Parts: sequence; C-alpha cells; structure tokens
Amino acid sequence: MVPEIIHSCIKRIARLPGIGQRQASRIVFSLLRSKEHVATPLVTDLEHLLLLQSCSSCSFPHEPRETTLCTICANPHRNKNTIMIIEKETDLLTIEKAKIFNGTYFVLGSLVNPIEPDSEHRFNLQPLLVRITTNPEIKKEIIFALSPTATGNLTATHIGRILKEHNVHTTHLGRGLPNGGDVEFTDEETIIAAFTNRK
Amino acid sequence: MVPEIIHSCIKRIARLPGIGQRQASRIVFSLLRSKEHVATPLVTDLEHLLLLQSCSSCSFPHEPRETTLCTICANPHRNKNTIMIIEKETDLLTIEKAKIFNGTYFVLGSLVNPIEPDSEHRFNLQPLLVRITTNPEIKKEIIFALSPTATGNLTATHIGRILKEHNVHTTHLGRGLPNGGDVEFTDEETIIAAFTNRK
Repeated sequence: MVPEIIHSCIKRIARLPGIGQRQASRIVFSLLRSKEHVATPLVTDLEHLLLLQSCSSCSFPHEPRETTLCTICANPHRNKNTIMIIEKETDLLTIEKAKIFNGTYFVLGSLVNPIEPDSEHRFNLQPLLVRITTNPEIKKEIIFALSPTATGNLTATHIGRILKEHNVHTTHLGRGLPNGGDVEFTDEETIIAAFTNRK
Repeated sequence: MVPEIIHSCIKRIARLPGIGQRQASRIVFSLLRSKEHVATPLVTDLEHLLLLQSCSSCSFPHEPRETTLCTICANPHRNKNTIMIIEKETDLLTIEKAKIFNGTYFVLGSLVNPIEPDSEHRFNLQPLLVRITTNPEIKKEIIFALSPTATGNLTATHIGRILKEHNVHTTHLGRGLPNGGDVEFTDEETIIAAFTNRK
C-alpha cells in the first residue's frame, strides 16, 4: 500500500545521527508534502555536497579544485609545523571561531570505543604519519583536542602511543573550570585538574 | 573556510521536522564521511521519492502510473461510501495496521492552529467536496480521526461546520482509556469521556 521507496527512505534517514524511525517517517512525509520548496532544493544541495572532496592532509571537506588540500592546509599563512588532532569537523569550526590556533588539523572522524570491537582500527592515521615523516618539525608538538570523555581519553592514549613510537611530543588541551561554570557543581576530576593547573 | 554548500545543506536540513541546527551539522558531516554507503544511496532514494504523486482523491502518495489514484482509492474492494479524515500520512498507516476500516481516507496534511493566522485556509477541501457531490452516499458518514488535542478539536470543528452545510453526517473516533493505560494517571477529560462511553 505504501510505496516501497517511502520505506526505503525512512530506513535510510533513520540511520542518520540522532534520528529515529518515527522522526524519519515524519521527515519523509513532510518532504512529500513540500516537494517544490523543501525537498527539491534539498536534493539538489545534497548532490552538490557529494561533490566535495576530503583534504588529503587533514580530511576536512573542500570544494573540488586543482589541489587535494582544503583551504586551511593550502593556506600559506598557516603554520604547517603544528598539528591539532580533533574528533570531528564541527570541533574544527569551534576551534577556528576562537582564533587561537594558526596550525593545521587532523580530523579523526570517530573515536576509539571500548564496546565496539576494532574501533581503534577505523581511523586511517597514514596521512598523519606521512606528514610527520616529511616534516620532522611536527614532532615538536602535536596537540590533542579531543573531548575529555572516556572515549576521548582512550583515543588520545591509543594514538599517543603510536606517535610516541615516532618520537612525537604530544600535548592535550588544558582541563579546568569552563567559563561561566559553577565551582559548587563541578565534578571532582575537573576540580583536581583546575587545582593542578592553577596559575 | 567551510564550503558554502555545507552551510546551505545544514540550513535546509535544520528546517526538517524535529531537527535543529546542531544536529543538522552533525548529519551533514556524517554524510560527507560516508558518501558511498550512506549519502549516495540516500540521495538516489530521495530523487526517486520526489517522483511519487499525490492521490487526486485522498492526497496519499503513490507511485506514478496511469491512474491519479493511490492504491487504496483505486482498490475496488474498498468501500468508497465512507471517508475518514486524518491529519497526516503516518496516521493512515496506524489505522490501516488495525485492519478495522475498509473505507477511504482524506489526508489534511496539517491542522488548524489558532496561533497561526489563516492556518484554516491552508488545506484544500475541494477534492473532498467533489467526492461528496459525486457520491451522495458519503453524506451518511464521514469519520474524523484527528488527535484529541486543541488543534485537532479545532480542526474537526472547522471542517465539521463546512461539511454540515453539505448535509454530511460526521462522527469522531471514540474517547476513553487507552489500552494499557492507568486510571490513576488518566486526565479528567479522558475519565469523563470513558465514563460517558461506558458499556
């Protein structure tokens, strides 16, 4: 009764991050109800999105052009000697907004997850290791900017071990009270970090 | 720095039901990370989805074919003399699953919303009125299957008034305790309805 393509779309949309089966079917029928103003322009944009390429150096997406580098990695004003390792592209946007870092990035795309077997083999560190080998200056500092969570810490430990084999010096974003935070409601680990990092 | 098409996709996805700006950007970057297995098949499916047509009688979507009717309205075994008015396509699916109704539907697509001006003029009742005129048997009963909420009730009242002008007899889905419900936590209106509808 329901066209097969509707089921197929619902299934695919339900697999996107944070969307469930019910919301997916609401989305599909709402797309059908506003084809002209919502669905058609969305599909056109998604087609265009798929043309983007991943930077060969950091894997951040960029418009297809003669170079395989994204605008950050291709920018001559960015310091190629420092790399910041981040989990996802949106983390990069947050860090760029702060205008504090002028180096380049390396986007992992995922984190090591202790309950998923082989999750530590999912990210491809090869482009990072190539960068280290071709520019030994990088060994002076690679910054981990991973979220201070169980999986973030595990990932940093895992990659840190590999980088150590290449004699890379690694640092991590400082831990302490966040701006606007309340001492009363701060967890123990953060208090300890804030106390240790006092200045 | 971020390709313009990414911003555009985020904006469009954030307009889909139940999705916010943050989730939209997570979705866009996750699509970019799994182009081959997720994004490309999704875009192909969405293109196919856009080819679906709205039934000229009830507005439920159907595959393009020689008739302008959906599989329910075109089914000779369905009773064309009874119409059930529903808000959205997913409501139809729930009702069909119960296998209690053998008539045809009329999908409104939206409800009257008192805080949105002109929301009562948004749905096109013309196909419904045409059906009533061409088949006076329908006047014996049109069933409202709208959710018992403020907007659902308002919509039923609004459309009910128009149908009355055409001498249509209307009924509403019964109200009472839902299966598995707990008397203790049932609201006053439902208790009153359940008491009144006791049998």
